[in-house]
Amino acid sequence: MSRRPKIAIVGASGYSGAEIVAILLRHPLVELNTLMTANQERQGARPQISDVLPQFLEVSDLEIEPLDFDELRKRDIAIVFLATPNETSHELVPQLLEHKLKVIDLSGSYRLREKGLYSRWYGFEHHFPALLDFAVYGLTEVNRQQIRAAELLANPGCYPTSILLPLIPLQRGGLLNSDADIICDSKSGVSGAGKSPSPNTHFSEVTESFKAYNVMRHRHTPEIWQELETANLIFTPHLLPINRGILSTIYVKTRKTTTDSMITDCLLQAYNREPFVRIHRNGTLPEIKFVAHTNFCDIGWKLDADRSNLVLISAIDNIGKGAAGQAVQNMNVMLGIEETLGLL
Amino acid sequence: MSRRPKIAIVGASGYSGAEIVAILLRHPLVELNTLMTANQERQGARPQISDVLPQFLEVSDLEIEPLDFDELRKRDIAIVFLATPNETSHELVPQLLEHKLKVIDLSGSYRLREKGLYSRWYGFEHHFPALLDFAVYGLTEVNRQQIRAAELLANPGCYPTSILLPLIPLQRGGLLNSDADIICDSKSGVSGAGKSPSPNTHFSEVTESFKAYNVMRHRHTPEIWQELETANLIFTPHLLPINRGILSTIYVKTRKTTTDSMITDCLLQAYNREPFVRIHRNGTLPEIKFVAHTNFCDIGWKLDADRSNLVLISAIDNIGKGAAGQAVQNMNVMLGIEETLGLL
Amino acid sequence: MSRRPKIAIVGASGYSGAEIVAILLRHPLVELNTLMTANQERQGARPQISDVLPQFLEVSDLEIEPLDFDELRKRDIAIVFLATPNETSHELVPQLLEHKLKVIDLSGSYRLREKGLYSRWYGFEHHFPALLDFAVYGLTEVNRQQIRAAELLANPGCYPTSILLPLIPLQRGGLLNSDADIICDSKSGVSGAGKSPSPNTHFSEVTESFKAYNVMRHRHTPEIWQELETANLIFTPHLLPINRGILSTIYVKTRKTTTDSMITDCLLQAYNREPFVRIHRNGTLPEIKFVAHTNFCDIGWKLDADRSNLVLISAIDNIGKGAAGQAVQNMNVMLGIEETLGLL
Amino acid sequence: MSRRPKIAIVGASGYSGAEIVAILLRHPLVELNTLMTANQERQGARPQISDVLPQFLEVSDLEIEPLDFDELRKRDIAIVFLATPNETSHELVPQLLEHKLKVIDLSGSYRLREKGLYSRWYGFEHHFPALLDFAVYGLTEVNRQQIRAAELLANPGCYPTSILLPLIPLQRGGLLNSDADIICDSKSGVSGAGKSPSPNTHFSEVTESFKAYNVMRHRHTPEIWQELETANLIFTPHLLPINRGILSTIYVKTRKTTTDSMITDCLLQAYNREPFVRIHRNGTLPEIKFVAHTNFCDIGWKLDADRSNLVLISAIDNIGKGAAGQAVQNMNVMLGIEETLGLL
Repeated sequence: MSRRPKIAIVGASGYSGAEIVAILLRHPLVELNTLMTANQERQGARPQISDVLPQFLEVSDLEIEPLDFDELRKRDIAIVFLATPNETSHELVPQLLEHKLKVIDLSGSYRLREKGLYSRWYGFEHHFPALLDFAVYGLTEVNRQQIRAAELLANPGCYPTSILLPLIPLQRGGLLNSDADIICDSKSGVSGAGKSPSPNTHFSEVTESFKAYNVMRHRHTPEIWQELETANLIFTPHLLPINRGILSTIYVKTRKTTTDSMITDCLLQAYNREPFVRIHRNGTLPEIKFVAHTNFCDIGWKLDADRSNLVLISAIDNIGKGAAGQAVQNMNVMLGIEETLGLL
Repeated sequence: MSRRPKIAIVGASGYSGAEIVAILLRHPLVELNTLMTANQERQGARPQISDVLPQFLEVSDLEIEPLDFDELRKRDIAIVFLATPNETSHELVPQLLEHKLKVIDLSGSYRLREKGLYSRWYGFEHHFPALLDFAVYGLTEVNRQQIRAAELLANPGCYPTSILLPLIPLQRGGLLNSDADIICDSKSGVSGAGKSPSPNTHFSEVTESFKAYNVMRHRHTPEIWQELETANLIFTPHLLPINRGILSTIYVKTRKTTTDSMITDCLLQAYNREPFVRIHRNGTLPEIKFVAHTNFCDIGWKLDADRSNLVLISAIDNIGKGAAGQAVQNMNVMLGIEETLGLL
Repeated sequence: MSRRPKIAIVGASGYSGAEIVAILLRHPLVELNTLMTANQERQGARPQISDVLPQFLEVSDLEIEPLDFDELRKRDIAIVFLATPNETSHELVPQLLEHKLKVIDLSGSYRLREKGLYSRWYGFEHHFPALLDFAVYGLTEVNRQQIRAAELLANPGCYPTSILLPLIPLQRGGLLNSDADIICDSKSGVSGAGKSPSPNTHFSEVTESFKAYNVMRHRHTPEIWQELETANLIFTPHLLPINRGILSTIYVKTRKTTTDSMITDCLLQAYNREPFVRIHRNGTLPEIKFVAHTNFCDIGWKLDADRSNLVLISAIDNIGKGAAGQAVQNMNVMLGIEETLGLL
Repeated sequence: MSRRPKIAIVGASGYSGAEIVAILLRHPLVELNTLMTANQERQGARPQISDVLPQFLEVSDLEIEPLDFDELRKRDIAIVFLATPNETSHELVPQLLEHKLKVIDLSGSYRLREKGLYSRWYGFEHHFPALLDFAVYGLTEVNRQQIRAAELLANPGCYPTSILLPLIPLQRGGLLNSDADIICDSKSGVSGAGKSPSPNTHFSEVTESFKAYNVMRHRHTPEIWQELETANLIFTPHLLPINRGILSTIYVKTRKTTTDSMITDCLLQAYNREPFVRIHRNGTLPEIKFVAHTNFCDIGWKLDADRSNLVLISAIDNIGKGAAGQAVQNMNVMLGIEETLGLL
């Protein structure tokens, strides 16, 4: 058992970090070895994970230690997950790489290739532009080849994952009218906002309500533009009164010659052998409950061929395929082991 | 007090009917006189409203009587609300009109002017095409003049209300690019599906989930097309895990010359003096909780003038302005009394 | 209209304060004149109420002003509502009384008659013990006579209201076995915890969960003991994943001779003429949805006479009868006007 | 692989049945071989499980076949799970036993040893009293020895599981005052009511509400009485607006000499080596979210030693440890394999 690769998580007490913990505790071929926190305030205590997250009572007795790069190196950690805020990841990544540690970063800090976008969309100046080129964008089904060799993996945003997986094959397959705008109307559960209490995530403000937010200025927008290589795309996020899950309703114009069976063929060719993308056929459509607590991305659609109108529906668990699940999927790829381990 | 107009409701035990009861019990200038049911199975019993709906315990002791046209006539009922299923309203309306009773019908059975649409979208053959011309479409802010004299009022659908109120002034004001598609992505609470239990409205199937449904074939589609006089409009309804409320996110292309202040001016000109339409300015956006349990329609927007992209957000209570509230607003107009009575 | 008594609210942006605003805006015989904040950080701005609470957009243009005792006096305010935290009310009450202002305090700071209880249960030393005797405990149905003349009204806690109303008549009527413990298992919506975000009220921590909290140490315990004049009572509060409402399940032993009809008679005698207490008969039981957004307290029960076991169920809206509603009811009593005004 | 025991499920499309499917698909040492339905109406079709339950899309292609005893025998099924209604299980069990098939029945039809209780509490006459003696009550931690040899296992009810696990060690350990009543105030998610739509489980009737139901007449009452061998116990079930989970708040009187550490010792001695019962120490208390989607039963408590008042709090997932999870745990015991397989 001691030969199993050792894994560390920085930021295990957040929602994505805790989900990585849960997945890795069930993973047969890696060892969840180390939990650390980058939060200065918590550096004194060394609580057990179950003190912070009682769901792990009698499941794990791992301690949450203060962040220590040398210790990570000394313990021969194969991969470090960063489930930390954007600014924290921005600072930690270069230091981890200097210590010859492979990193899977769940934040947005290394997803965009263009340095200048960070000041506009993320509100901080990016100091490590060379690493933006070095990082591999971890949309597993699309970039698997590069992910195998990645040393810095930028795990995709939750919204972009739900939008890119249905669109990329259709776009690359030439089935879409590239002159028309793409409209992405996305709805997410509250866990996507993280674990820090705020008026926006206060129970009484969320239950029995619904709203759009950050319209035309959500920071996932340039990530989607980058991967689709087009800015003719409007993205509107909304807040659902649920904990976990994203459903995206995507409106595109097809080429006049595109038929329903061409869409079926294109999506099946792209995803038929993919274990985590499921194509809903015969007009059935994804729902969040079918993917909650899984690493699946479900895709369905309705085509009005007469008007070239295509409505795509995709669903993921924002903490699963949209964060922790896809991060572990990428870890499996980087370690060269079965991609589905821990995830089915 | 005996001079107050007498009102009857058929179908008071459903969600919209019960809301009309609640509103009219607080209404200072009408008398809620009669509750009747068209449901054959319930004709034997004469339960008090509070036996069926305990929220009315000690609030009203009205009985729910079997439907009886002559009795309605004899009691000198000024207006009959029909909060009944489509097929029921379709049958009852002509009989009520024959008995010289004014009708406000909350179903969709008299909203479409074109008879042929009913077989395709509603699944039944319409037998009273002359009444389709006779009916007044009750979008109060738009059709107030005709509503005053209406004898058969077709109360608008919940989704159409949320979509038409923001779009009509902009469309009529020439601010939109009429060649481009309009995309309406709407999300509704479960009460819109009515009170009959079904797998789609079973708590365990709805909570913590979200889905699109009836994509490209929801029966409110032709109603929206009719009132906007265009079929270049895609409408996608979704089911929110909440009880009451609709939020519609509407994507339109503006004319190149349209500016943000032109949109403000246009909407304010249309609605500044309207008591139930509220324009959110300065970039603030509607949320369902701000309109729940009210008769308001809130409207906000974001314009990307460079790309002529306009995102409109509207919010209503589907049982309020989307059904019972607007129905009572129309009743007030038809009776020639203050339009806001019972509703603020 | 200028003769209507003028009312002020300190703390209108919290949940109870906002509910008082909503009720008073519909109240026919008082004038909601002044909103003030005791929060030092907000003293600079003078926002409109709708800037802070968009549900009041176009409904009220009242400003939230810095707290100013002289100004309250100068404006001839008849009653000041304090919807402020315990410590704030503790400080403000004596100053308001010095300025000859009548106060309805929604906090717990003047509910307990015994000064010493505050350090133990509330965590602060009470500095105004004379005012604890001066204050009238505002359980309207029980203390109406004293409330009429009150100058300092301590509005009851939400949990105590739901527990005292069913128990007091049965206890005073001698139907209970006074040797046996009373067990109060209460469940409340999240709005009872107030508007300040915290991990306990973070949406993702509350939805799809349920817990007991502050077991054997909730500060409403001594309030219940005081009013029932017994400490043989266990009170366990729980947090429901809903916004508004409390349901209390109360287990008592009856005297051996107590019959079901004696309970009916006792409760009807106490509450038959009360407009806001409703007795569920024939075995029907209260549910939170029947009382949400109302000032009602609903009471039902099941008796196992063979074993002298009585299970009482009561339901209120914690923001309604449990706070703002009862506060306005008390205001009506203090002003000598119809008790139900604004509340039905 | 062909040597793995083959398992069949009758009633896989219900909530408990579907959960057994999900667990067994991840189980390393058994083969989920057969799904059958006892529902006559569905006997014609042979849908794939994913046609009925889209969460199993590309996860399982098992068909749901008509019930066929001979076929079960022919396929050498080791254990048949019955996730069927009470009346259905009542009829099927004797026929399965006649075909030499071992049965784990999730219904209540074979839990009570006294035949006469069925007419009173379940509303049907029990025709197989000999089998009531033959059946083993499957509270794993308590009856493990007998479960090993069981041929008919009656899987415990969800409420009884949450109540018996905390009480049995304390009762048997002599820490409780056996003269005093035990009060069990239990709250359950809606999935406990099953998958058939009804007014009680209609989303709009459940969300933002809460109620007690079947007070003093819930059919789990005699099951609890039987296992605790006392009828001095009041059980009140309530309906939570959540999908999965039960929290029971249990009020008992201790003996005067009982101390907090005696309770700790007693519960730890009973459960320290049990993989699925977790004792919350240091005053922390169970919450539903810590056990949702698991097979754990969490137990915590508060003792007021001065008054001999003990409040026990237990939490389970009603579909997990309260049904499917415990059923699989029992299957593991019956098969003589590691008890936690498939469940951690």
